[in-house]
Amino acid sequence: MPSKRIESLSGDGQTGELALLRRIRGRAGQAAGTALRLGIGDDCALLRPRPGEELAVTTDLSIAGRHFRLDWHPPESIGHRVLARGLSDLAAMGARPIAVFLSLGLPRELTTAPTHFPAWPTASVRQKGSTRNVSSWIDAFLDGLLALAAAHKTPLAGGDLSESPVPIADVVLIGRVPQGRALLRSTARPGHILYVTGALGGAAAALARLTQLAKGQPAGPLRIPRNLKALLAPHLCPQPRVNQGLWLVRHGLASAAIDLSDGLSTDLAHLCQESGVAAEVDAALLPIHSGATLAQALHGGEDYELLFTAPAQARLPRKIAGVAIARIGRIARLRPGQPAVTLLTPQGSQPLDPQGWQHFA
Amino acid sequence: MPSKRIESLSGDGQTGELALLRRIRGRAGQAAGTALRLGIGDDCALLRPRPGEELAVTTDLSIAGRHFRLDWHPPESIGHRVLARGLSDLAAMGARPIAVFLSLGLPRELTTAPTHFPAWPTASVRQKGSTRNVSSWIDAFLDGLLALAAAHKTPLAGGDLSESPVPIADVVLIGRVPQGRALLRSTARPGHILYVTGALGGAAAALARLTQLAKGQPAGPLRIPRNLKALLAPHLCPQPRVNQGLWLVRHGLASAAIDLSDGLSTDLAHLCQESGVAAEVDAALLPIHSGATLAQALHGGEDYELLFTAPAQARLPRKIAGVAIARIGRIARLRPGQPAVTLLTPQGSQPLDPQGWQHFA
Repeated sequence: MPSKRIESLSGDGQTGELALLRRIRGRAGQAAGTALRLGIGDDCALLRPRPGEELAVTTDLSIAGRHFRLDWHPPESIGHRVLARGLSDLAAMGARPIAVFLSLGLPRELTTAPTHFPAWPTASVRQKGSTRNVSSWIDAFLDGLLALAAAHKTPLAGGDLSESPVPIADVVLIGRVPQGRALLRSTARPGHILYVTGALGGAAAALARLTQLAKGQPAGPLRIPRNLKALLAPHLCPQPRVNQGLWLVRHGLASAAIDLSDGLSTDLAHLCQESGVAAEVDAALLPIHSGATLAQALHGGEDYELLFTAPAQARLPRKIAGVAIARIGRIARLRPGQPAVTLLTPQGSQPLDPQGWQHFA
Repeated sequence: MPSKRIESLSGDGQTGELALLRRIRGRAGQAAGTALRLGIGDDCALLRPRPGEELAVTTDLSIAGRHFRLDWHPPESIGHRVLARGLSDLAAMGARPIAVFLSLGLPRELTTAPTHFPAWPTASVRQKGSTRNVSSWIDAFLDGLLALAAAHKTPLAGGDLSESPVPIADVVLIGRVPQGRALLRSTARPGHILYVTGALGGAAAALARLTQLAKGQPAGPLRIPRNLKALLAPHLCPQPRVNQGLWLVRHGLASAAIDLSDGLSTDLAHLCQESGVAAEVDAALLPIHSGATLAQALHGGEDYELLFTAPAQARLPRKIAGVAIARIGRIARLRPGQPAVTLLTPQGSQPLDPQGWQHFA
């Protein structure tokens, strides 16, 4: 039951795995001038870190029916989304991406049959005229993934490929960060101020709209009207806040950080638990995405904004690298019998329990 | 459709994903004194490479029904095997493992229901008496994986977890190697001598025996008689040649290397293609595993031995770190119209075409 690796690319067939691997290798991009010394083509990739830097590593597993739907999501969006998850983890540490690895398990037909979706340029896909030169689902998937990778100057350095009855993609991202400067979850302290980048709830609102759209259409690839693309972008094409994380590390202002992948209520609970602190969120200060509800802003996942803390005396700008920064609350001492996270509203304060997704529950 | 990461472990439930993550985190081991500065518990793991070292990175995707069978393989063997694949890739580069990441997609019942297999200690599993304290398939899987990781002093540094209709495991391994010293596939030169570690064909012979065993039994978990365990070990519990790869780098004797995961005929073709050379293998010199055929030694995959080259004047010992070394042929100039790999037999020479597994073919 052996398989071949992307690293073990070779052969000269026109079909099958080796031809597919050659296509991927041809699109992986060059790595000149980066920390990647050796990319696809050997048993391992080789990275050469710079002195005084640490490497941040994260893996994100996405499975059809759980993290994406083949009948809802254009393949470019799926490629974009699986990479955005990992880039957002690097952003939360303030790390600069230097290499991405992709393990793909796909049914055979997704590597050969043309996709039924019309071309769907993600915000990062370079649009070459109005048509695409795509032979199969996997090509369009790679369009979305590699365009976002290119936007962050991140070469595809390796991975693995296998037939699978269920489409799955595991994305590994490696980033670099000056030694001892990575933003952690465990270093928030009472009195520090809570901030978020961008707006919250946009992805959940867009997913609700997508669900509604699907209910009104027959089975098969979802038709997404052009005038909805901007509205659905927070879900179909989320933008990880890599530049904002780098800015925070460079300026040394943040005391702790996490990315909002599971929703504010869940991710803030993680940050509080790892730091051994409590937090108060002021509902009136939340930057709610246009079209989203308060509940979506509090519990909706996949916004991929950064949640971070800074000492009270730190002066944060209104925008970082073009994205608005909002003060939403503060870190407090954890008291026995008291909720870890409290929501302040005009009606008074109430516990804010984590309501994010949990597998196997 | 969000999921949680092993890195985002928190919560205090007794069931579900968070409890499972806490169990995994508790077993991941400490990282004191290693290159791993921060393990499970944040958005990313942090590695601190030493000056003058490069990092080798490899990912290996294993899928139920393709790379393992739930009804054939004891869960400890599956955990061992998915890790052995990645360790073997590091071995082929001569890299020392410093961290492993595990992305697991599982049906819910594998995280809760007891496994139907009796305890099956892999060669690396520390046997604590005759019973095991295992509550589910995933615990026994982790027994096998973490025992092999511990044998190579490799901490589990992170990963991801998701429900999946089909069990899948993607293993990421990171190793360190002195700058510029990694063994590559692309540096074999005409005149160099071909060597392999250990014996070939043992895994294929064991898999054939396992297949035979399954045919004689009713459906359900395969019963593996005690007296077959040693015979089946090359398939159920392969030993990656990490120490042999480290020895080759330390002594600077090898000019190129690859691991034998897809079979000699296929992997030697990869090495020849990446190096732009041809090769001759002398059938009479092949160290065929006891019980294996010549065909299994030539084409059977998953032996996880090292295939390497060295200049003709290099003096290789008979054993490296306890494993036999055999000279099996030589590297030659690639000539147009001639086969890349030739097999020399008493009946004359013949082309040796790659006959390894290929996905999507």
